[in-house]
Amino acid sequence: MAPRNAAPKLVIIMVGLPARGKSYIVRKLSRYLNWLQYDTRVFNAGERRRTAAHVEGRGDKAKEESRLGRGQFSSSAAFFDPANPDLVSARDQIALETLDELLDWLSGRDSSSIGILDATNSTPKRRQRVLSHIRKRLGSLDWVIFFESCCFDHDILERNFRLKLNGPDYRSQDPNEALRDFRQRVAFYEKSYVPLGKAEEQEKIPYLQVIDVGRKINTHLIQGFLSNQVVEYMLNFNLSERQIWIFCGGESIDDSVGRIGRRSDLTASGQQYAASLVRFIQEERKRWEESRRNRGLEDHRQAKPRSTHEEVTLGSHADNKSPQPLDFCIWTSTMPQTIQTASGFGDEFFAKSQMKMLDDLNAGDMAGLTFEEIAALHPAVYAARKQHKLQYRWPGLGGECYLDLIHRLRPIILELERRKDHMLLVTHRAVVRVLLSYFLDLRRDDLAEMTIPKNWGFSLKPTPYGIDFSAYSYRPESSTFYLEPDARSRFFPS
Amino acid sequence: MAPRNAAPKLVIIMVGLPARGKSYIVRKLSRYLNWLQYDTRVFNAGERRRTAAHVEGRGDKAKEESRLGRGQFSSSAAFFDPANPDLVSARDQIALETLDELLDWLSGRDSSSIGILDATNSTPKRRQRVLSHIRKRLGSLDWVIFFESCCFDHDILERNFRLKLNGPDYRSQDPNEALRDFRQRVAFYEKSYVPLGKAEEQEKIPYLQVIDVGRKINTHLIQGFLSNQVVEYMLNFNLSERQIWIFCGGESIDDSVGRIGRRSDLTASGQQYAASLVRFIQEERKRWEESRRNRGLEDHRQAKPRSTHEEVTLGSHADNKSPQPLDFCIWTSTMPQTIQTASGFGDEFFAKSQMKMLDDLNAGDMAGLTFEEIAALHPAVYAARKQHKLQYRWPGLGGECYLDLIHRLRPIILELERRKDHMLLVTHRAVVRVLLSYFLDLRRDDLAEMTIPKNWGFSLKPTPYGIDFSAYSYRPESSTFYLEPDARSRFFPS
Repeated sequence: MAPRNAAPKLVIIMVGLPARGKSYIVRKLSRYLNWLQYDTRVFNAGERRRTAAHVEGRGDKAKEESRLGRGQFSSSAAFFDPANPDLVSARDQIALETLDELLDWLSGRDSSSIGILDATNSTPKRRQRVLSHIRKRLGSLDWVIFFESCCFDHDILERNFRLKLNGPDYRSQDPNEALRDFRQRVAFYEKSYVPLGKAEEQEKIPYLQVIDVGRKINTHLIQGFLSNQVVEYMLNFNLSERQIWIFCGGESIDDSVGRIGRRSDLTASGQQYAASLVRFIQEERKRWEESRRNRGLEDHRQAKPRSTHEEVTLGSHADNKSPQPLDFCIWTSTMPQTIQTASGFGDEFFAKSQMKMLDDLNAGDMAGLTFEEIAALHPAVYAARKQHKLQYRWPGLGGECYLDLIHRLRPIILELERRKDHMLLVTHRAVVRVLLSYFLDLRRDDLAEMTIPKNWGFSLKPTPYGIDFSAYSYRPESSTFYLEPDARSRFFPS
Repeated sequence: MAPRNAAPKLVIIMVGLPARGKSYIVRKLSRYLNWLQYDTRVFNAGERRRTAAHVEGRGDKAKEESRLGRGQFSSSAAFFDPANPDLVSARDQIALETLDELLDWLSGRDSSSIGILDATNSTPKRRQRVLSHIRKRLGSLDWVIFFESCCFDHDILERNFRLKLNGPDYRSQDPNEALRDFRQRVAFYEKSYVPLGKAEEQEKIPYLQVIDVGRKINTHLIQGFLSNQVVEYMLNFNLSERQIWIFCGGESIDDSVGRIGRRSDLTASGQQYAASLVRFIQEERKRWEESRRNRGLEDHRQAKPRSTHEEVTLGSHADNKSPQPLDFCIWTSTMPQTIQTASGFGDEFFAKSQMKMLDDLNAGDMAGLTFEEIAALHPAVYAARKQHKLQYRWPGLGGECYLDLIHRLRPIILELERRKDHMLLVTHRAVVRVLLSYFLDLRRDDLAEMTIPKNWGFSLKPTPYGIDFSAYSYRPESSTFYLEPDARSRFFPS
C-alpha cells in the first residue's frame, strides 16, 4: 500500500469517557514516538468542536456547516445528550471530520507515520462509523488500533474532574456551576458508554486498554512494530512524583582543550565541580523529601483517603503513615570523566551503576581531535556533519550519529519512565541533548542544534500532569549551582 | 533483603489448566532470560509427581512420604479428582515441595535470579497456599508474579491434547485410552478452575495473563524490571512457521589475513560465496513455500477448519484459500563485508535493511590486528580476554565484550520473535555466536567458546512446539551449501 521508503503507518483511535487522561497520555505518547523519529500527530475532536461552536456565517462552507447543526455546538452538557439524535449526528460529524484531517495527513505524506484521533469514541456505534470511514478511505483496517483509557480510581477521577475546570471549556465559568455541568456531561456519556471488548474481538480489531494509569493493561491482537512500541511505552508509565537529574560530567583534560569523544580524566576544576555536585544533590534530595513528608503529614491530618495509585508498588506499604524516602540511583557512563564526577556520592546512600548506553556519542576516527582540527584536516567530514548533524555518522569503527544515540538511549528513557526512585544521570553533552529532547519534546532540527550551556544541569520532576523542568548553572566562584529562571523558554523553545 | 550485588529476584508462579502450553512457554521464556544473563530455572510439579509415584519403601523419608499418601500418586485421571480431599492435599503437597525447592535455589545463591514454578495452580485455594508459603519463607510477596496461560482456541487445544500422548504420563499407553484419561483429568481440573482476576486484584498481586498464545494479553500491576522483560517478551511471541536464516558475510580482505573487527571489502572468494548464497536462499524459499502450499491444499481438501491462530494477523486474509507467500526480509550490518554479501538479492523480492545492531563485536584499539599480533603486542589484553571472554571489553573507544553484544542484540531477538516473515541475517561471527546461543539455549561459558565453522550458515524454523535447527556448510568447489547432519549435537551440545 505505502511505497517501500515511506514511514510505517499507524492510526490510533482513542476511546474513553471524558476526564480519563486521554489527552495527557496522548501528548506524552506522541512526544515519545516523535523522539523515536516516527512522525506523530494528535488530532483532537474537542478542539474541532470548540472551533465549530465559534463559526459564524462566513461564506458557503460556514453555511453548509450551519445546516449540519453547527449552530448548536457548545460546551454545555446539553450538547452531549445521547437521547437527541441530531446532536449525536452532529458530534459524529465532528469526529469524522477530525478523522479525515488525520487520514489526509497520514496518507498524504510519506514521512507521516502515526496519527492519533483524540476523541471519546465511547459507543460501539461511533466506533463502527469510524472504522467504516477508515475502511472506505484506506481500503483496509491494517493500520488501525484502538486505545482505551479507563479509570476507576476515585481519587484520580476527582483530580481529573477538577483539572477540567481550568480547561478551555470551563475556564471562564463559575467553578461550582462548571463542575456540575461537566458531571452532567460525563453522566450523558456514561449512559451509552461501552468499553472495548467483545465487539472488537469478534471483528479482530487490535486494541490496547489501560486501566488506572497502568494498574491493568489489556491488549488484543497487538502485533505490529509500532503498536508494540506503544504498548511497551505504556507498560513503563508511572505518575509517581520524583526527581530526575541530568548532568554532564565535570571538565576533563580533553574538554579543557576542546578535544572530543575520548576517555579522559577530570581537571582540577572538574573535580571541584564534582564535589559541588555531591553537595548540591544531597541538599536537593533532603529538601524534596522534607517537603514530601510535610505534605504527607498534612494529607494525614486532613484524613484524606490515600490514592490507590500511590500504593501501587510491588510490596506496597499501604499502612505506613509517613512515606519511606525514595531510593536514589546514580547512573554514569563507562568513561572516566563521568565516573570520577560521581565518585563522591557515598555507596551507602546512592545506588551507582555504570552504563555503556550513557557513553558519549562515538566520534569514530575523529575522537581526540578538536572541531578546528577536523575542519582543517577532514574538511569533507566537517562539512557533511555540519549539514546533516542528525543523520551523519562519524567515519571509522563504531562512529555514531544522533539517530544512533536515540536508538541507544531508548531503554534508558523507558527505565526512567518506569522507575519510581530518584535518578541522577551523569553523562556527556550529546547524550544530555538527546535525553532533554525527549523530555522537552524538541523536534529533529532543534535536537542536534540545541545549545547546552557549559556546566549546566537539569532537573525533571514528573508531576501528575506534566513535567517541572528546571536548569541550574554551576558557579565555580562559590562552588554552587544556581537556579536559572525561565530556562525552558530562554534556551529550549518548543 | 538481598545484598546489593545479588541478582534481581523474581518468582513466577504459573497458572493454567493442563495442555495450555505452560511448559512450552516456560521453556522458551527461561531460554530468553538465561540468554539475557539472568540465571533462571524452571521447577516442574508434574515431574515431582511422577518421581513420587515411583518412590518405594527406601528408609524413613520414603516412609514419611508414604504416610502422606504417596502410594496413591499416579498419572491416571482418578488422581486429579477434586472431590477427594486426600488427593487434593497430596497434590498441594507436591506443589509446595516443588516451591520449596525453588525458594531454596532462589534465596540460597546471590546469582539466582528467576525461579519459575511450572504447575497448574488453577484454584484460588491452591494459589492462597502458595502465596502464604512464600510469605512465610521470604517475609513478603515482593518478588512474586502470577503468569497464566489460557487457551480457548479449539484447534490449538486439540493439538496440545494430542501432543500430551507423547508426554511422560502417557507415552506407553494405548492412545485412545490415554486421550480419554487425559480428557477426564482436564475435566477434573475444570471443575474447580478459576482464572486469575478479582482475587489477585484485591490482594494486589501482579499478574500476567496470556490468552491463545498472545491473541490477548492482560497485565495487572506489572512494574518490576524483570517482570517487564517477561511481558515484553510475551508481547513478541508468535508461533507462525517461517524461515530464519543466520549467515556470516563472505570472506573479506581482512578475514583472509586474520585481521579482526574492521570494515573490509569481500575477496573474490567472498564474492563467489555471496552469489552462491543468493541462489541457495532463493531455492530454499521456493521449496518452503511450495511445501506450505501443498499442505494448505491438503488441509483444504480435508475441509479442516483453519486454525484461528493462523488468521491472527493485522488485516487478516481469512478467506484466502491458498496462503500468500510470506515476505522475506534481509538484515545486514552496516559493514561492507555483509552489505556486499547481500548485494545480489533483488530489491523486488527481498526487503533489505542495514542495522548497526548487527555490526561486528567492536574490538576497540585491537581492530585491524590479528590475534597473533594482539598476543605479541598486547599480551596483557590477550590474556585478560582469553580468561574472561564473556565480560572482557576490548580496550579503546567503543570496545565491547560479549555481554555488550547480548544487550545490543536484544531488540533483534524480540523482532525475530515478533515477525511472521522469513528472515535472513547476514552478520559477523561473534554476532552469529550470540544469536545462536539464544536459539540453542547455550549457557555462559558455551557462548563465548562456541565454534562457528568458517562459511557455515544456520536455519531456524520455528514450529508450534520448538525450533527445527539445521546447519549448512559452504562448498566452494561446487558453489553450494550442504546440509550438515546432526549439527546440533555435533557442534552445539546443550
